[in-house]
Amino acid sequence: MSVLETLTAPETMAPTLTGDELRRMNAYWRACNYLCAGMLYLRANPLLREPLKVEHIKNRLLGHWGSDPGQSFTWVHLNRLIKKYDLNLIYVSGPGHGAPATLSNSYMEGVYSEVYPDKSCDEAGMQKFFKQFSFPGGIGSHCTPETPGSIHEGGELGYSLSHGFGAAFDNPDLIVTVVVGDGEAETGPLATSWHANKFLNPIHDGAVLPVLHLNGYKIANPTILARITPEELDQLFKGYGWKPYVVEGDDPTLMHERMATVLEQCVLEIRAIQRQARETGSFERPRWPMVILRTPKGWTGPKEVDGHKVEGFWRAHQIPILDPQTSPKHLAQLEAWMRSYKPEELFDEEGTLRTELQEMAPQGARRITANPHANGGLLRKPLEMPEFEDYAVPVEKPGDFEVSSTDVLGHFLRDVMRKNMTNFRVFGPDETASNKLTAIYEASKKTWMAKELPEDLDGSELSVDGRVMEMLSEHTLEGWFEGYVLTGRHGFFSSYEAFVHIIDSMFNQHAKWLEKSKLELRWRAPISSINLLITSLVWRQDHNGFTHQDPGFLDVVTNKSPEVTRIYLPPDANCLLSVADHCLRSTNYVNVIVADKAPHLQYLDMDAAVKHCTKGIGIWGWASNDDRLEPDVVMACAGDIPTSESLAAVAILRERIPELKIRFVNVVDLFRLMPESEHPHGLSEREFDSLFTKDKPVIFNFHAYASLIHKLTYKRTNHDNFHVRGYKEKGNINTPLELAILNQVDRFNLAIDVIDRVPSLQMKGAHTKEWLKDQIIESVNYAHENGIDKPEIRNWKWPL
Amino acid sequence: MSVLETLTAPETMAPTLTGDELRRMNAYWRACNYLCAGMLYLRANPLLREPLKVEHIKNRLLGHWGSDPGQSFTWVHLNRLIKKYDLNLIYVSGPGHGAPATLSNSYMEGVYSEVYPDKSCDEAGMQKFFKQFSFPGGIGSHCTPETPGSIHEGGELGYSLSHGFGAAFDNPDLIVTVVVGDGEAETGPLATSWHANKFLNPIHDGAVLPVLHLNGYKIANPTILARITPEELDQLFKGYGWKPYVVEGDDPTLMHERMATVLEQCVLEIRAIQRQARETGSFERPRWPMVILRTPKGWTGPKEVDGHKVEGFWRAHQIPILDPQTSPKHLAQLEAWMRSYKPEELFDEEGTLRTELQEMAPQGARRITANPHANGGLLRKPLEMPEFEDYAVPVEKPGDFEVSSTDVLGHFLRDVMRKNMTNFRVFGPDETASNKLTAIYEASKKTWMAKELPEDLDGSELSVDGRVMEMLSEHTLEGWFEGYVLTGRHGFFSSYEAFVHIIDSMFNQHAKWLEKSKLELRWRAPISSINLLITSLVWRQDHNGFTHQDPGFLDVVTNKSPEVTRIYLPPDANCLLSVADHCLRSTNYVNVIVADKAPHLQYLDMDAAVKHCTKGIGIWGWASNDDRLEPDVVMACAGDIPTSESLAAVAILRERIPELKIRFVNVVDLFRLMPESEHPHGLSEREFDSLFTKDKPVIFNFHAYASLIHKLTYKRTNHDNFHVRGYKEKGNINTPLELAILNQVDRFNLAIDVIDRVPSLQMKGAHTKEWLKDQIIESVNYAHENGIDKPEIRNWKWPL
Repeated sequence: MSVLETLTAPETMAPTLTGDELRRMNAYWRACNYLCAGMLYLRANPLLREPLKVEHIKNRLLGHWGSDPGQSFTWVHLNRLIKKYDLNLIYVSGPGHGAPATLSNSYMEGVYSEVYPDKSCDEAGMQKFFKQFSFPGGIGSHCTPETPGSIHEGGELGYSLSHGFGAAFDNPDLIVTVVVGDGEAETGPLATSWHANKFLNPIHDGAVLPVLHLNGYKIANPTILARITPEELDQLFKGYGWKPYVVEGDDPTLMHERMATVLEQCVLEIRAIQRQARETGSFERPRWPMVILRTPKGWTGPKEVDGHKVEGFWRAHQIPILDPQTSPKHLAQLEAWMRSYKPEELFDEEGTLRTELQEMAPQGARRITANPHANGGLLRKPLEMPEFEDYAVPVEKPGDFEVSSTDVLGHFLRDVMRKNMTNFRVFGPDETASNKLTAIYEASKKTWMAKELPEDLDGSELSVDGRVMEMLSEHTLEGWFEGYVLTGRHGFFSSYEAFVHIIDSMFNQHAKWLEKSKLELRWRAPISSINLLITSLVWRQDHNGFTHQDPGFLDVVTNKSPEVTRIYLPPDANCLLSVADHCLRSTNYVNVIVADKAPHLQYLDMDAAVKHCTKGIGIWGWASNDDRLEPDVVMACAGDIPTSESLAAVAILRERIPELKIRFVNVVDLFRLMPESEHPHGLSEREFDSLFTKDKPVIFNFHAYASLIHKLTYKRTNHDNFHVRGYKEKGNINTPLELAILNQVDRFNLAIDVIDRVPSLQMKGAHTKEWLKDQIIESVNYAHENGIDKPEIRNWKWPL
Repeated sequence: MSVLETLTAPETMAPTLTGDELRRMNAYWRACNYLCAGMLYLRANPLLREPLKVEHIKNRLLGHWGSDPGQSFTWVHLNRLIKKYDLNLIYVSGPGHGAPATLSNSYMEGVYSEVYPDKSCDEAGMQKFFKQFSFPGGIGSHCTPETPGSIHEGGELGYSLSHGFGAAFDNPDLIVTVVVGDGEAETGPLATSWHANKFLNPIHDGAVLPVLHLNGYKIANPTILARITPEELDQLFKGYGWKPYVVEGDDPTLMHERMATVLEQCVLEIRAIQRQARETGSFERPRWPMVILRTPKGWTGPKEVDGHKVEGFWRAHQIPILDPQTSPKHLAQLEAWMRSYKPEELFDEEGTLRTELQEMAPQGARRITANPHANGGLLRKPLEMPEFEDYAVPVEKPGDFEVSSTDVLGHFLRDVMRKNMTNFRVFGPDETASNKLTAIYEASKKTWMAKELPEDLDGSELSVDGRVMEMLSEHTLEGWFEGYVLTGRHGFFSSYEAFVHIIDSMFNQHAKWLEKSKLELRWRAPISSINLLITSLVWRQDHNGFTHQDPGFLDVVTNKSPEVTRIYLPPDANCLLSVADHCLRSTNYVNVIVADKAPHLQYLDMDAAVKHCTKGIGIWGWASNDDRLEPDVVMACAGDIPTSESLAAVAILRERIPELKIRFVNVVDLFRLMPESEHPHGLSEREFDSLFTKDKPVIFNFHAYASLIHKLTYKRTNHDNFHVRGYKEKGNINTPLELAILNQVDRFNLAIDVIDRVPSLQMKGAHTKEWLKDQIIESVNYAHENGIDKPEIRNWKWPL
């Protein structure tokens, strides 16, 4: 019975804690708990120097008590080990709204007062510290970016463990303690992230020490993991590849001794695993230790309120005593509970934590909430970059040959990797090769600590030292990536376009984190951007069909703050190189790059590409015949495939209606379309009008849903003349051309659009229009008869 | 060693299969495999009646071989047991693109030809059956809606098991076999869905029989579960609460015997668990059996191609032999491989499966792909509905008192539940109570098969018979819900608004499934709509802060087909009742209902609410003072909280500028705003203009991001005069009014907007404007000084 073993083994040994140590640790913990309760309730009388009165209580009580004591308990024990072993350790708080635990510890470590001097370490500061919590103009009840020492937003649940692993990669000296709530543990992203232990290298990565906090309840429900048998629980985590130690109970004295023993054992095992691997240079996949901490929810809080069980039940989730402002009985109960921590023993006359307790915390940067890894921008070093121009595709004339842009990018990324073998990683859900980034493997293979087989040598590209992270979980990869950049490093993520929606919500949360950090928190140093390459695009999901056709992620991105979002649609390989270089050097953005993996025509040589990408939008003179004068029509486009269709349409029109004056505009940086008042990249009205005219028809061929272009341009002078084509949910198994035709982004339909919208042409173009319609019918028939052998049935190259 | 036990136990018993049975089962399997290979490669010569030539091969080879043989192997064995025990069984194919397994079996069962008569059971039909696969105008390489017998879209991965559970709930007679791919098993949603066994009742639910198919590889990588130790694998699934049986090997003869024995054992255990529970009326949470099937990837396919390992390696994932069209050597290898199945032994002169093999399949509706549960609309019965008017909030005059709309809805849903105790379930991630739907528990409690504790009697609301599904996994809940409606039942899902983004991708996939089913597949009977209540809205996430503020799900929804999407923003409780009643009766939609849980002012009595919701948009005469003539300004709004702010703005304006003629328009059905050419609910131009005028300013207060209103209305005559307010990513810990002010959707800013935009008022309103600005400053200051005690600092009720 391994469960019982882990429970009872510590008791048979000599005590880990001396009596005085235990007493002081418990006092430190009482102080944490007192501060947590104070945050929930008090706006005055923070040290209970006078009897508690209604006017000391906040008017509206908001916040979460449930997981605070268990988290603080863990923290106190981590402090002991940091000091004893000089650990470099950060703490990730998974249980969503248990921020008071982190906040109280930060305050007791003195860090909070260093960051926010008005929350000083005295009675006046404590009062402000209490009052601001869950108070208008103050701070949230979960670990928001405002929380020193936190890299993990606790608002949405599910990503604590993947964030923790991201922090640990390439930080050999670091231990990342991740407290996982048993509510959070029910989410999908968390449930699979336990498998991240197959991707952690004991030689050059740090360690992740999970503490699964079984406090038994969510908002109003028991948790699954707290209600399965101890045997199942033990099996589950052994099955996940961990070595679980259980610490269970509710008697603080016994629990301190158990926790001290178990946590120390975990640290020693971690060090032993690392030492052996590092000394010998080889290892079997380690079974890393973890802790299962089972404590009552709202531990040390009120046992009952009005005959209802509170401690150890879901009623302890938020505010344990609901109405002390109106119920004298409950006011008294609140006071008794808060006084049970004996604040007068913990804080001196000034309201400062007593010296003997201050000494329990580590010093300087070893304090958990002062660890620079949790403010990763402080440690960030720019990437060593190869010259992206060296990877240029030689383009002598536009549209002369086809190349896979992502394949070209792969070679660039390979050399970025080679120059940054300790602070750059590439992420992709089993799709790095499928997305044609294979060259990266020449620099570094796929991270893989699980079993290898002989046949893997023939192309599986696995290595314990690999820096390409592949697991079939977009959630885990994005979580790793975020944890990696939040601790000061760099990365690049590629995903199938349709399935990047899987991480919509993670994108939202990270963008919100960045916005607050960038605009409001000067003390947070800038971190590297999240670089998302969206590929295997809708227009080449003709063979995978309807389910793989969804370019809507861009709509999600454009809802977030312009301060932290960027969208690029490079039309060819050289533009992609220029954009990627720019993104990899940037900080505090989410950069979304849209580029297909299939071979496509190339248009710009490197000089032209750099100029075009620097401007972000521009007229392609070689494709235009308006002689820079007022055109009859503007053919605009954004995205590699729409660009080639627009060019093909121009080719048709110029051949068949040579007198038509066409201006060709290509958009790389999507936010150039927005008003300059709404996005830093937005064009001025004047610039916009000079490109798109004030009154001529604009036939805009867009990569994604057409409405997005309207969303970005509806305030523009000429908006009423914008006719936008994009994906409109029409597709199944088609050829690329047929798929384009179904959604009317193809060359023929675009040409028809021009004929329909340039008034002087409507008669002249009639014959051409019939011809165009015949082409469409012919193309579709050809596809249905002949299969998918010719993705571009007619290879309209430019120049004709 | 339980792993070895489960492996070897069957061998010690008498053989399960007779020699003849085994021979015929293997022949049936060979036929499946032959058909799978044929789908990948052939467009002619389907039975290899002549030597294989280049012109018989498809031009472009697309499709997935890897998981097909293992899946078909499972299928053949399920057929045996269906016949032996008269099982009512459906099959969910998790491994994404392994559709050929399902398709080939459907064809061999005769079902495919019944549904698609041109794919007849003869040589000509087989040729068409082969050719259409992954061919333009044909069908996809995963189980799309076109696949008879499938309720599970295999395009995106992760939801097979939750779909399977959804199908099994309240289907006591049904066994749902779910083949889970080991790639899919790495996703978060799949990883947590194993815990669904704590929610399955052996008395009134059916059974789920998972077959974890360890074929070892994804596209280009080994899988995690295939590369951990057998002990870990065994522990993992025991930890998840299952009883795993391992079937492992590559010798078909041995494997048939093992699989037959193990699968039969599983079926017998399922029946024993159910029998005992049903006879005694009580049970301990069962440890349901499952199968871990470890077979080579691309089993029976080419062992090597050009010296590279294919069978049993990732190279077998898609097309095992890549270029038979251009390489005579590979053409010969392909032919040898296909002939190894001996098609001449399997199909007769006509090309029809030989009778002795046909007899291996079940008959009629017992055929897996003919089971009506997999075309759930066939079994669907409309809900028994209470009269929603009976739950009306009595409203004598608008804006006189506050009520929580979702609380009212909860009472209605309670009685819907009471009337439909076998085909209606409610879903919510630990938030049913938080979202104020608590009354539902009076009809049915929360499903809970795990351990119960004495304290649960005090409000945990758990029951093994519960019909309210709560787990902290939006993915699992949505998967259950989809599986439940896809098999002909009904449901209702409530979620915090910000975190419904977690299931963006699931929404996308289900909407795509519905669109194809509804518009193109007459044989698929309509299923109940997915009803999503989005609550705990952005405007009342003042206390949870920035991370909980995201109304962007509506943007995702509006990208999908108008044929299957509906969005409702009822302004008060009576409207919510009317909308909910409508949604619960509807089929083949995703209905999104946006309604807050906090108490809000009520405006319409039930008659008015029904009329208003039926129209979906309308003028509120009692709030207007334009006497139905041309107004100076249109105050429009959509959403409960924006409506109350717009009304408060009207109250201010009418008090301070009585000569201003205001028209008040409220929108319930968001798609009324779209052009009628683009959405079936769209207003005609005439109707739209009659509401919004052709040239007057429209101050539109919107619940979500303002750009969505522009997206829906940009083609309208008066669009240039639309001034839309909505959430613009400004928020932290605020009061509701302060949050509204930050985003300018508040009464004061709206009134300022009117003053700024009605030309004749700009001078007249000057004094009022200063006063409004003072109100804003005062409100924010008040909030910061006094806390969150008064969410609506000034309770602007209507009428004043």
